[in-house]
Amino acid sequence: KLLATPGALKLGGEKKEITIMMSDLRGFTSLTEQLPPETVVAIINNYLKCMVDVIQNYNGTILEFIGDAIMTIFGAPLWTSDHAVQAVACALEMQLAMEEVNRWNQDNNYPEIQMGIGINTGHVVVGNIGSEKRTKYGCVGSQVNTTSRIESYSLGGQVLISRETLQALGDIRPELSEEFEASPKGIKEPIKIFSLSGLGDPYNLFLKQGGHEVIQLAEAVQ
Amino acid sequence: KLLATPGALKLGGEKKEITIMMSDLRGFTSLTEQLPPETVVAIINNYLKCMVDVIQNYNGTILEFIGDAIMTIFGAPLWTSDHAVQAVACALEMQLAMEEVNRWNQDNNYPEIQMGIGINTGHVVVGNIGSEKRTKYGCVGSQVNTTSRIESYSLGGQVLISRETLQALGDIRPELSEEFEASPKGIKEPIKIFSLSGLGDPYNLFLKQGGHEVIQLAEAVQ
Repeated sequence: KLLATPGALKLGGEKKEITIMMSDLRGFTSLTEQLPPETVVAIINNYLKCMVDVIQNYNGTILEFIGDAIMTIFGAPLWTSDHAVQAVACALEMQLAMEEVNRWNQDNNYPEIQMGIGINTGHVVVGNIGSEKRTKYGCVGSQVNTTSRIESYSLGGQVLISRETLQALGDIRPELSEEFEASPKGIKEPIKIFSLSGLGDPYNLFLKQGGHEVIQLAEAVQ
Repeated sequence: KLLATPGALKLGGEKKEITIMMSDLRGFTSLTEQLPPETVVAIINNYLKCMVDVIQNYNGTILEFIGDAIMTIFGAPLWTSDHAVQAVACALEMQLAMEEVNRWNQDNNYPEIQMGIGINTGHVVVGNIGSEKRTKYGCVGSQVNTTSRIESYSLGGQVLISRETLQALGDIRPELSEEFEASPKGIKEPIKIFSLSGLGDPYNLFLKQGGHEVIQLAEAVQ
């Protein structure tokens, strides 16, 4: 696809608005201390396989696997104007796919695992980053750090999104279950975080959430 | 080298004591907001090239570039008993190589950059992690998180190491400039962190540090 789009990939680096998604297993690290190494790797690899399938369906660009964490961007290297919607729909479907992951874990007598997701939209520098010996597509900028902070607040089963991502959803109607303000270390202004529980037409993806009250947004968030 | 060592790389995952090194530019993210994207990528790529050269000299396995951050392990996939010494010597030489990086930055009218490094030694699960479509060598375990915490305390120019890494240095005499205890979020016990300023024979690598008092260790740390 990149080969068919000359100029789609600028080598020198460019500034672009994209949506960044970070996901991570919750509590898995302490599990790894108790399980045989083969089991740890088998659980992670099955989980990653399921997630990669979903991410590819939504045209996400996976930048990294870091242990059980996945860093994905939407809107680069190939530009798409609906990067925020794609990211959010992808995240909901990833959470729904965790059912399948845990069915497989159960079938193999492995423990249940849970994933948290953080999503943010903003301008970053994207480009081929690395040495001559080892280059890969990547991104840098404070919005990457912000995404990582947002993700760090997520509980298992949650999709947390920033106000910027919410605003970028446009006409697509989100269903939110919670909102809160956070002042993470290293970030000047407090950030407003929303817990997303569903996405309306044409996606119709809804998380099964117990005990959370759903706030229907009457109008777009300013 | 791997091809010549049958069995060196177990596919299923194994538990190993290794040394993990994480490095990151300090304050670079806010710089990226002010510089043209081409400059951001040029600065990062020159910096990474210099660091990769040093890391390869010490047989480090680079697992990730995450923007300007580098995650490296020593002692896997190819085992070496002196993984802690290799990591620490590598880190000191990386800091010394920042002079060359900044000379190049200055020649190009780019701003000076500074790097912090965190090092930790412990048991992790290593193996080929990923989906069928995308697999790579990686590691998981709480010691990875601990390393990341240690790195987060480092200032530009510093090499911070855990007590476990210090103990693993064996006969090699370290020069330390500071020690402190930290209780990072998500880690149960407080961790003891040492700021390393040099390494004796046969390495003889010493950081130029202004204003830091040097503590000579009379005996190995228990």
